[in-house]
Amino acid sequence: MGKDFILGDQLEAVRARAPLVHNITNYVAMNWIANGLLALGASPVMAHAESEMRDMAGIASALVVNIGTLSEPWIASMKTAMRAARERGIPIVLDPVGAGASVLRTNTARELAFEFSPAILRGNASEIAAVAGEAGRTKGVDSTRDSAEAGAIELARDLARRTKAVVCVSGAVDVITDGERVYLVRNGDPMMTKVTAMGCLCSAVVGAFAAVGGKDLLASTANAMALMGVTGEIAKERAAGPGSFAVAFLDALAEITRSDLEARARMEWLRP
Amino acid sequence: MGKDFILGDQLEAVRARAPLVHNITNYVAMNWIANGLLALGASPVMAHAESEMRDMAGIASALVVNIGTLSEPWIASMKTAMRAARERGIPIVLDPVGAGASVLRTNTARELAFEFSPAILRGNASEIAAVAGEAGRTKGVDSTRDSAEAGAIELARDLARRTKAVVCVSGAVDVITDGERVYLVRNGDPMMTKVTAMGCLCSAVVGAFAAVGGKDLLASTANAMALMGVTGEIAKERAAGPGSFAVAFLDALAEITRSDLEARARMEWLRP
Amino acid sequence: MGKDFILGDQLEAVRARAPLVHNITNYVAMNWIANGLLALGASPVMAHAESEMRDMAGIASALVVNIGTLSEPWIASMKTAMRAARERGIPIVLDPVGAGASVLRTNTARELAFEFSPAILRGNASEIAAVAGEAGRTKGVDSTRDSAEAGAIELARDLARRTKAVVCVSGAVDVITDGERVYLVRNGDPMMTKVTAMGCLCSAVVGAFAAVGGKDLLASTANAMALMGVTGEIAKERAAGPGSFAVAFLDALAEITRSDLEARARMEWLRP
Repeated sequence: MGKDFILGDQLEAVRARAPLVHNITNYVAMNWIANGLLALGASPVMAHAESEMRDMAGIASALVVNIGTLSEPWIASMKTAMRAARERGIPIVLDPVGAGASVLRTNTARELAFEFSPAILRGNASEIAAVAGEAGRTKGVDSTRDSAEAGAIELARDLARRTKAVVCVSGAVDVITDGERVYLVRNGDPMMTKVTAMGCLCSAVVGAFAAVGGKDLLASTANAMALMGVTGEIAKERAAGPGSFAVAFLDALAEITRSDLEARARMEWLRP
Repeated sequence: MGKDFILGDQLEAVRARAPLVHNITNYVAMNWIANGLLALGASPVMAHAESEMRDMAGIASALVVNIGTLSEPWIASMKTAMRAARERGIPIVLDPVGAGASVLRTNTARELAFEFSPAILRGNASEIAAVAGEAGRTKGVDSTRDSAEAGAIELARDLARRTKAVVCVSGAVDVITDGERVYLVRNGDPMMTKVTAMGCLCSAVVGAFAAVGGKDLLASTANAMALMGVTGEIAKERAAGPGSFAVAFLDALAEITRSDLEARARMEWLRP
Repeated sequence: MGKDFILGDQLEAVRARAPLVHNITNYVAMNWIANGLLALGASPVMAHAESEMRDMAGIASALVVNIGTLSEPWIASMKTAMRAARERGIPIVLDPVGAGASVLRTNTARELAFEFSPAILRGNASEIAAVAGEAGRTKGVDSTRDSAEAGAIELARDLARRTKAVVCVSGAVDVITDGERVYLVRNGDPMMTKVTAMGCLCSAVVGAFAAVGGKDLLASTANAMALMGVTGEIAKERAAGPGSFAVAFLDALAEITRSDLEARARMEWLRP
C-alpha cells in the first residue's frame, strides 16, 4: 500500500480541499459528526428532505447514509439520495447501525446494501453479519461479535464480493476488504466505545477520505480508520474519562500532523 | 432502605450487566443521554419508528419515554412501545417534559401516565403538577415550582396512588414516592440546571437502575437520583462553567466508586 | 448607539429576565443552542409540532426559526409559529441555513422572509444573497462570500428595505443593517467556524437579546453579535482545538461580565 506516503497525503488532501460530505444520519450522531468533520477540515451538510436530495448530490463530494434512527420517510430519502449520488458518480458510504436489532433495520440495511450500490459498507461485526444475512445477535447498536476472528473476516470478504462494496468491520482490530485483499488496522482505544456515535463518525470520515481518495477505496477506507484510531490513542493520553476524551478527540483530529499519523498507524495486509 | 448497601450495589450491577435501555426521547437530549448512559456503563439505543418498537422491547431491559420534542407520529410509537414493554414486563419510565406548556404535551403526558402503565414518572414540579391535573404554570420546560414544599409532596403522593407509578419530582430536593413512603434526596448542584437535558438524563439513569433493581422501584429511583446528584457535586468541583461542568459530569459518572457514592449520598425518609 | 451603556445593559437584562426563546431549529444545532442559551442566562424551548405552536407563542418572548434540516412538515409548523408570534407581537428571527444550496431551502427561506414578517434575518453572506434572489453559490451550509465587501453590504441594505427586517450578515466582520444605518462588528475568531451551529447559536442569542431589547432591533442584534464575537475571543485564549474551544465558549458565555464585554466590543457605524 505504500501507506507511509498515501496516508499522510490523504489527510492533507482532505484539509486542502475541504470536501462537502452530505450526511443522512441519525439524530444522536448529527452534532458529533458535524463537529468531527469540521475538526478534520471537511465540510459537513446534514439534509434529509427527499425533495432536496438531488440538489445536495449536485454539490457534495460524498454521501454518507446512516440508519441509526431510522423511520419510513427517511428511507425514501436515503434511496433517492443514493440514486442521485450514483448517477453523479460520488462515493456512497452506508452505515447499517443496529442492523440485526430489528426487522426494519435489517431489511433496510440489506436492501440499501444490495440494491443501491454503496461504495463502502462500514459497521461493527454484528451489523455486518446481519447485512450478510447471518442470524446474528445485535445488542441494540453495540456488537456482540469479534471483528477480526477468521469467520468474521471470511464473512466480510464474501459480503464485499456480493455487494461489490469495500466492507469495513470496525472493532478492536478493524478489517477492511474488497473481497480479495484484506487490511487490518490495529489502532484505537477502548475509550472510543464510551463515546456515542464514534462509529458513525468513522463512517463520515471514511466518506471524506473517499471524496478525495481516487479509485482505491480500499486504501482510503483503511487510511480513514487509521486516522480515527490514532486520534483516539492521542485523545486517550489527555483524557480523564469519556467526557474529556470526546473533547480531546476533536482537538486531536484538528491538530494531528501527517508525521504523527504515519508514525503511529499500525496497518498491515492480512497474509493469505 | 439500607441504602449504604443497596446504593453501591445498584451502581455496580448496572456496570456489570450493562442493561440495554431503549429511549424514545427528544432531539435535544439524545446525544447527551447516549453519552451519559455509556459513561454510567449502560447500553443506550434510540429508536422511534413504530414498526420496530416491538423488536426493541424484545431486546431492551427498560424503556424510557420522553416527550420533550413531541409530535403526533412519535406519540403513536410511544404508545406501541409502552404496550410492548408492558407485555414483556420491563420497567417503563415516563418523562413528561414541558407538560403544562402546551395542550398537546399536557394531554399526551396525562394519557401516557394514566393509561399506559409507566412504572416511574419523573419530572420537575411544574410538569408533575400538570400531569396531576393541576392548573400549573410551566415556563417552557423549566419549573416554576418548588419540588419539596408540602403541597408538592402531597400532590406527588396522590399522583403515585392514582397512576400506581413511583413518582419522582426533581428539584433542589428530589422527592420520590410510591404513594405511601416518601424519600428525599438532597444531593445535586444548581449548575445541573445550566446543562440542557440533565433532567432527561436523570430519567434515563432511572431506567438503567430500574432495569437491574428488582421489585423495589422506589429504592432504585431514589438511588439513581442520588447518583446523579452526587455526580453533579463532584463535577462542580472541577468545572469553570457549564461547558466544563458537562464534560466533568460524564467523566465523574464513569469514574465514581461505590464508596464515593455512599459517602456523599444524602437520602432520607420523609418522617410522617 | 451609546454602546458602552446599552451593550452591558442588554446582557444583564437577559440574565435578569431569562426570556423564554422558542426555537424551531435544526437537529444538528438543538443541543448546542439549548446549552448556549442556558449559559447566557436565557431559557430555551424546542418545539415543532404544529398543534402546539400557538401555545408556545403564548408563553415565549421570542421565536427563532432555523431551516438547517428542513422538511415539509416542519415548514407548516414554521409558518403557523410565525403567524402566532406576529399576532402576539414577539420578535421573530429567521436563520436561512443553507439557502442557495437547494431549491427547497432557497424557496422556503424567501417565502418566510418576504411573507412571514421576521423582525431579523441572520445568515452568512451566501445565504443572505440567496434570500435576496441573487444567483449565489452556497457550499452546503458554509459561505463562499465575504460578508463585508461593498456589494454584500449594499445587497443586505436592499434586502432589509424589501423585507422590513433587520438583516445581519455574519462573517469575519458582521454587518447589521435596517436598510439605512449599517453597523459593523469586528469581533470573533476563526475558530468559531470550526464548531458546528455557531451561526445557529448567534441567531438564538439575537432572539434572546431582541426579547429584552425594546424597539431598537438594530442595536440589539449588533449587541448580540458583539457578545458572541467577544465570547469567541475569550474562548480562543483557553482552547487547544475546536473541542476545547466549544467547552470554553459555554464557560465564557456564562462568565463574561459587562465590563469585559464593553472593553472588548469593536462596533462601529459604517460611515456613508
